[in-house]
Amino acid sequence: MGLFLTNCWYAAAFVDEVTRAPLARTLLDTPIVFYRREDGTPAALHDRCPHRFAPLSSGTLVGDDLQCGYHGLRFDCAGRCVSNPHNDGKPLRAADVRSFPLFERYGVVWIWPGDAAKADPTLLPHFTYLEDDSTWSVLKGHLRVKGNYQLVTDNLLDLTHAPFLHPGFKLPNVTPEQQLAATTTRLDRFPDRVLAYRLRTGLPPNQATIDLFGFPADPCETRTHMTWYPPAIIDFDNGTKFPGQEDLEGFCFPQAHLITPETETTCHYFFAAARNLRRDDPAIDKALMGVLDTAFRTQDEPMIEAVQARMGQTGDIDAHNPVLLKTDGPPVTARRMLKEMIAREQAGPRSDPAVAAE
Amino acid sequence: MGLFLTNCWYAAAFVDEVTRAPLARTLLDTPIVFYRREDGTPAALHDRCPHRFAPLSSGTLVGDDLQCGYHGLRFDCAGRCVSNPHNDGKPLRAADVRSFPLFERYGVVWIWPGDAAKADPTLLPHFTYLEDDSTWSVLKGHLRVKGNYQLVTDNLLDLTHAPFLHPGFKLPNVTPEQQLAATTTRLDRFPDRVLAYRLRTGLPPNQATIDLFGFPADPCETRTHMTWYPPAIIDFDNGTKFPGQEDLEGFCFPQAHLITPETETTCHYFFAAARNLRRDDPAIDKALMGVLDTAFRTQDEPMIEAVQARMGQTGDIDAHNPVLLKTDGPPVTARRMLKEMIAREQAGPRSDPAVAAE
Amino acid sequence: MGLFLTNCWYAAAFVDEVTRAPLARTLLDTPIVFYRREDGTPAALHDRCPHRFAPLSSGTLVGDDLQCGYHGLRFDCAGRCVSNPHNDGKPLRAADVRSFPLFERYGVVWIWPGDAAKADPTLLPHFTYLEDDSTWSVLKGHLRVKGNYQLVTDNLLDLTHAPFLHPGFKLPNVTPEQQLAATTTRLDRFPDRVLAYRLRTGLPPNQATIDLFGFPADPCETRTHMTWYPPAIIDFDNGTKFPGQEDLEGFCFPQAHLITPETETTCHYFFAAARNLRRDDPAIDKALMGVLDTAFRTQDEPMIEAVQARMGQTGDIDAHNPVLLKTDGPPVTARRMLKEMIAREQAGPRSDPAVAAE
Repeated sequence: MGLFLTNCWYAAAFVDEVTRAPLARTLLDTPIVFYRREDGTPAALHDRCPHRFAPLSSGTLVGDDLQCGYHGLRFDCAGRCVSNPHNDGKPLRAADVRSFPLFERYGVVWIWPGDAAKADPTLLPHFTYLEDDSTWSVLKGHLRVKGNYQLVTDNLLDLTHAPFLHPGFKLPNVTPEQQLAATTTRLDRFPDRVLAYRLRTGLPPNQATIDLFGFPADPCETRTHMTWYPPAIIDFDNGTKFPGQEDLEGFCFPQAHLITPETETTCHYFFAAARNLRRDDPAIDKALMGVLDTAFRTQDEPMIEAVQARMGQTGDIDAHNPVLLKTDGPPVTARRMLKEMIAREQAGPRSDPAVAAE
Repeated sequence: MGLFLTNCWYAAAFVDEVTRAPLARTLLDTPIVFYRREDGTPAALHDRCPHRFAPLSSGTLVGDDLQCGYHGLRFDCAGRCVSNPHNDGKPLRAADVRSFPLFERYGVVWIWPGDAAKADPTLLPHFTYLEDDSTWSVLKGHLRVKGNYQLVTDNLLDLTHAPFLHPGFKLPNVTPEQQLAATTTRLDRFPDRVLAYRLRTGLPPNQATIDLFGFPADPCETRTHMTWYPPAIIDFDNGTKFPGQEDLEGFCFPQAHLITPETETTCHYFFAAARNLRRDDPAIDKALMGVLDTAFRTQDEPMIEAVQARMGQTGDIDAHNPVLLKTDGPPVTARRMLKEMIAREQAGPRSDPAVAAE
Repeated sequence: MGLFLTNCWYAAAFVDEVTRAPLARTLLDTPIVFYRREDGTPAALHDRCPHRFAPLSSGTLVGDDLQCGYHGLRFDCAGRCVSNPHNDGKPLRAADVRSFPLFERYGVVWIWPGDAAKADPTLLPHFTYLEDDSTWSVLKGHLRVKGNYQLVTDNLLDLTHAPFLHPGFKLPNVTPEQQLAATTTRLDRFPDRVLAYRLRTGLPPNQATIDLFGFPADPCETRTHMTWYPPAIIDFDNGTKFPGQEDLEGFCFPQAHLITPETETTCHYFFAAARNLRRDDPAIDKALMGVLDTAFRTQDEPMIEAVQARMGQTGDIDAHNPVLLKTDGPPVTARRMLKEMIAREQAGPRSDPAVAAE
């Protein structure tokens, strides 16, 4: 699995993507097939029959087992070849395929591509706003970006790009320079995460927020607090409140940004954004989804893909000696932490040499 | 020509594809131009003018000669540069191109890509059902498959995939397991061929055959006998007869499957299928062609291409250590025989170092 | 910049292509952004922000400066990073990008990709027919050819391909052989250019010229004189006159052919063709442009691309040992001169190791 971190959770799919119809998805350069057992729990297998390399995802579910569509070998959810129809239906241990620990929570199917014995659901960050529908209403989206996954986390961990790349987030009658000057930042590196907090005071909300909720263009406090968990999970505490308000009295717009490598130069980008205001208003759903789509799909994604194109076939921007700005503190801190973690993992014993050697 | 067997016949085209309009086709990684002389016999030249590397296939026929469309060098059917218009029409020996021995039979133009001195028409297998139109009616097809040519022969030499990949060939009220259990097999390796015979008794014909010819769903004898000739010619003796019938009293459906490498990871797949029943019925032509198209183009071809995709840029499945089943006997036997033949040919003196070094 | 000659002028764009909307164009494997200052003079910068490798061409012009569309770094026309909005708008010398000397003349924006100190406008050949609109009317075109740039100059420097590749230029009742026989040639190598002159006498004009201007099919003198300036500029003196006429009394059709490498295997091909007859006739404009488009885009371009396809990923035809004809004198002379110049330039001190090392 190359130089990806493997002993960690990655978002593999939204829960409604994994059904009784096998789903083929490449993650960390590995083709994987996802499906649901009859009891509703999800399963994930290496999407390659070891006999003739047929994609198991083109096969058929027989109960909880997946039958290869080429010669009919049958695999259970643990990847065991439980039936070879060409040998009286006997199991064929030599044809076992790898299975992957999965975990469903927050509307997401999470996968642990490394040592299954280490897979621990408690290591997953908490996204309470994705579970408590008494307070929150959630919008979701999925992009496949033709760029290395770290280019997406870099993009999120340095929001100073917003006034330049996202005109829809402009503050009324405020220049980008004034906006940047009114923002205080904090960067903390913890052993298991990086905090990149940004607090803007004394300026009005951005135009999109004003338009959506009818807020006045008055001075307010806007937080865009990123918590990055390696390798590529971001908990984004985004909110706007006016003087005297508690957080929840203002507009809270917390977001999970879940990025999963597909290959060295492509990734899956899942996002889920919750709001506390006008939660049952389909017009707001539509308008807000439009704002997110404009920013993520029509502005961030093309920029990230253009950057990747400038980097050729390598996904590591540091190999190209970028000039660093002060504002690169958060992405650089995260990239370094991840590099160290990957180096440490690579130096340790490999959990699955068979697949690693592919 | 890399690691292809060259001293052998490959199917290059159906006879009606080679006309007075030059046909460009890449075989064994070599661009080749095919055309017909005025007397109707076919010719094949390396499709690359040695002067500026223009494709000769974009040139013009002048009698039996092919004139390059860029600067007008003229080549005869033997590849001799017989006229250089920039030197008073004198021949230019240095510009000779390679020609290839061709042989027309069975409705196919066969090419011998190796040492011309060894080209021997008697080495070609016999396909009597492609010549005797008093007994047989023939349907033909041509696919370009994005997979190594051996993936196609492997597919044919192990027909146990049929009940899993080809639902149209299902036997009524018979499970795949029952179908496999009712089949006896024979595998013979001869010095020049591999026989992989399968005889199924006591079960009804497959549903497609019942539907086409109105047979009863009664026990019958079905043979699917493959004779593989290296490198990639398969004579498929396919037939169904009921108790008391001679072969020709039942449904005979013999087929030639002719596979020719285009590149390491792509191939041409020609097939010609003959039948003895309802030979002049266009409705059967159409229905039978539909059955073949469904199986070959919409089921086999996507599966083979998916397998090739899992193998990346290499065409040799053995390099990926596939798990072998008992049923892999025929394809493994054929692959090993071909590997030995190629190794032997490579170890011998090269017949055409100029082209081989390209 | 690989093995391209860099201390020389290349055509980068027609003048009307460079506007206040940044133009992205890859030349010599280098992405470059072109735009105009407020005073109308053109500017060219390396199209890659050194911070995050965003294409500057997706940014915004602020006066004469180009502001990166990702994080807002601002660059002047000399490539200096004059403002970092994340550091109180201070310049950031470490983020300077390369700028390129430009020169506008003959309706073309010329670029000097090498050592700026050596950029000398007087080194540019003269194309008087592109400037004097009292005598000349000019048609222009731009092709992007999927072939090495030298394949285009080779094509032009050996016009013996015309009777074979361009049927529209056929002479009435004259065979290609007669046409070639009636042509005398001269080849001169000067230190800074190669002359490949061709003079055809005693034969009628070509059919296209007859059709366009109503000339008689009488014997005339036709000159197709090429002057090649390294690396890839061709001044083509093309004209037809009848006995007793001075050049300008006949049909003069001088053309500039300006070829600029994009990558090793692709190029930009700009052409500008002037005429002295029926200069204000839009019907002639249209018909003549049709003749040029047929020849250059539908005949030369596909042939050059087919040749490149036969050469794979290398752009150097000599690496494939082409058979040479006598008529290859001009292209071979030019290719050798250019190879020597590139070798000499490579052996000298590099002007810009930073970019060269990319």
